This record gives sequence, structure tokens and C-alpha cells, in this order.
Amino acid sequence: MLNTGVVPRLVDHDARRAEIADAVWRVVRREGIEGASVRRVAAEAGCSTGSLRHYFATQSELVAFAMELVVRRVTERVVALRPTGPPVRRAVAYLEVTIPLDDERRAEMQVWLAFTARALVDPALAELRDRAHADLRGLCAGVVRALGVTRDVPAEAERLHALVDGLALHAVVDPRTTTPRRVRTLLRRHLEALAAG
Amino acid sequence: MLNTGVVPRLVDHDARRAEIADAVWRVVRREGIEGASVRRVAAEAGCSTGSLRHYFATQSELVAFAMELVVRRVTERVVALRPTGPPVRRAVAYLEVTIPLDDERRAEMQVWLAFTARALVDPALAELRDRAHADLRGLCAGVVRALGVTRDVPAEAERLHALVDGLALHAVVDPRTTTPRRVRTLLRRHLEALAAG
Repeated sequence: MLNTGVVPRLVDHDARRAEIADAVWRVVRREGIEGASVRRVAAEAGCSTGSLRHYFATQSELVAFAMELVVRRVTERVVALRPTGPPVRRAVAYLEVTIPLDDERRAEMQVWLAFTARALVDPALAELRDRAHADLRGLCAGVVRALGVTRDVPAEAERLHALVDGLALHAVVDPRTTTPRRVRTLLRRHLEALAAG
Repeated sequence: MLNTGVVPRLVDHDARRAEIADAVWRVVRREGIEGASVRRVAAEAGCSTGSLRHYFATQSELVAFAMELVVRRVTERVVALRPTGPPVRRAVAYLEVTIPLDDERRAEMQVWLAFTARALVDPALAELRDRAHADLRGLCAGVVRALGVTRDVPAEAERLHALVDGLALHAVVDPRTTTPRRVRTLLRRHLEALAAG
């Protein structure tokens, strides 16, 4: 019981920040990013604007944290994977977790899209977006190499990355056509062609 | 001089709407879509909020018109093309005008991205976005068929469309890597593989 009063408070602090980030997500999904004012988010999280400012000093910090949470969740899904089977099947498994194929991930992509648009005018968010962009490019390069491609790896990684991001966008704006099954088929088709040289 | 007082006023009306839409674009590029309030846009366009409301009754109408202008400009570029040469070269010419490869088109894509995020919470914009999405899908299907593909045309059109949208996104968020030259190379590579079956 040595740490009582210190550790619990730290834990509470992180848990509270995560709860507030969830509130940001709910507001963004319902009203768009322009709805995510400190006042509105505080109301959604059930706290006062004063206590919200205790966790996030500015609206920009708040949005950056909520955006970071999307990145973290996608990264955790990728890292948790232990795919088996032939190389193309393993590659599809890695790439498809970055594409919004269920409601939870569609919610992530919706807020990600709003954040990406906002990042064009907010340098603090742009840095985070650039890191996420570079991470996904790295994953694509790894997949391309794992398929035995040796020529033009950067170009093929860029083409695959554009395909993955395009499918992620379509899975949100046109989910009736870009179904999970369709996404897997298209990825497999692309990767098989790559593997065949 | 029969129409004086009628035609000039109609022309003025359209020109004024286009000027106001330009003001929306400038505000969105500078401050994000959350900055595009009726008051702010009126100030940017150099008119009163009252006279702005004469052209656009609501903020939603204003944003929809500005979004429609992006679609119209891209469509005009596609329709104006008379590409020559072998099929792959003609196909690259059609697709690359939908991708932001210069400052003017990057500006269009920036506002498009903000509008797309907003469309997730605004049904009036979603309809316009869906039309633009279907138009580009149709262009991709036409390209796929023109390359002699006869099997799985819808799936190949969808894969090409995802690639094109992904490249458009990357041309805005990572223009140093996704250069005009790189975009053309990747499109050519993809289309040559398609044409080769």
C-alpha cells in the first residue's frame, strides 16, 4: 500500500484522459471536427471545462491526443498479429487490420479523416499524421520485400500504400461496395501479382 | 439592350456566388472547415453577412456549392482532354488530371478532404460526394475496359479507383515523395500490368 495516493492518481489521470479522448471521438463522429470545442467535449465527458483543461490545456492538445489514440489502436492490432500460412495470406492479414472493416474501425477512420483534414492547417497534428504515414509506408515496404520483390521496392511500397489508403477511404465512404470481402479479394489480387513479379 | 437589368443581374449573381465560393476555399485552406462560418466567409469575400445570406441561405448550402465547384473543375479538366498515343499513355492522361499535381489542384484536394470529412456528418454533402465517387469509378471502369481487360472489370475498376484516390491523398499529405513524376510512373506501372493481363 506504499504508493497509495500516488499510483492510483496517475492511473486515474491516464484513464480520465482516455475517457475524454473517447468523448472527442463521439463528438467528432456526430458533429464533425468543428463540433469538438472544449465546452462541447467537456459536456460529452460529463465534466466541467475547468477540469477538462486540467487534462488538456488547449483544444489542439485534446485533438492531438484523440488522434494519437487512433494510431495507437491500429499499431496494437498490427503488433498483436501472428498470421500463418503462405506469404500472400500473411501479407493480407497485416494490411487488412489497417483498413476499417467493422463499425469500431470505421469510427476510427471517420475521426482519422477529420483529423487528416485538420492536420493540413495544424502543424502539431501534421507531425503525428506524418509519423503514421511513415509507419504504414514501412509496413507496406516490409510486405513487398516479404513477397520476394527485389526491384523498385520503394515504388511498389508506395503503390501498395496508396491502394491501402484508398481502400480505407472507400470502406468508409462506400461500405456497401467496398465490403470486407471485397477488400480482401483486391488486396490478395494485388499481392499475388506483386509476388509473381 | 432588351435584357438589360435582367441578364446582367443573373450573370452578376453567378459571378458573385463563384467569388463567395472562392472565399470559402481560402478560409478552409487557411483555417480548416471549422473556420468557414458565414461571418468569416462574408468578411473574406468583402460583403456583409446579410448580403451573403442573399446568395446562400445556410452555411451548409455555402459549403455544398464550394464542394460542387471542385467536382466541376475536375470534370471540366477530364472532358477537355484529347489525349493521343498508345492506350496506357491516354489512360495515364485521364487519371492524372484527377490527382493534385500542382498548387491549384492541391488547393482543390485540401478543400475536398475537409468536405469529405464533413460529408460524414452532413447528408447534403454526402450526396454530392457519392456522385463524385461514382463518376471517378466510372472513369476508372472506362480506362480498364479501354486497356482490353474483359475479366473482373468492376473489381479492377475498384482497385484502380482506390489507387487513384490513395495517390491523390498522398500528393497532398506527402508531396515531397509523391511527386507528379512519381504519380505518373506508378499509374503507368499499374496500367501496363493491367493491359498485360
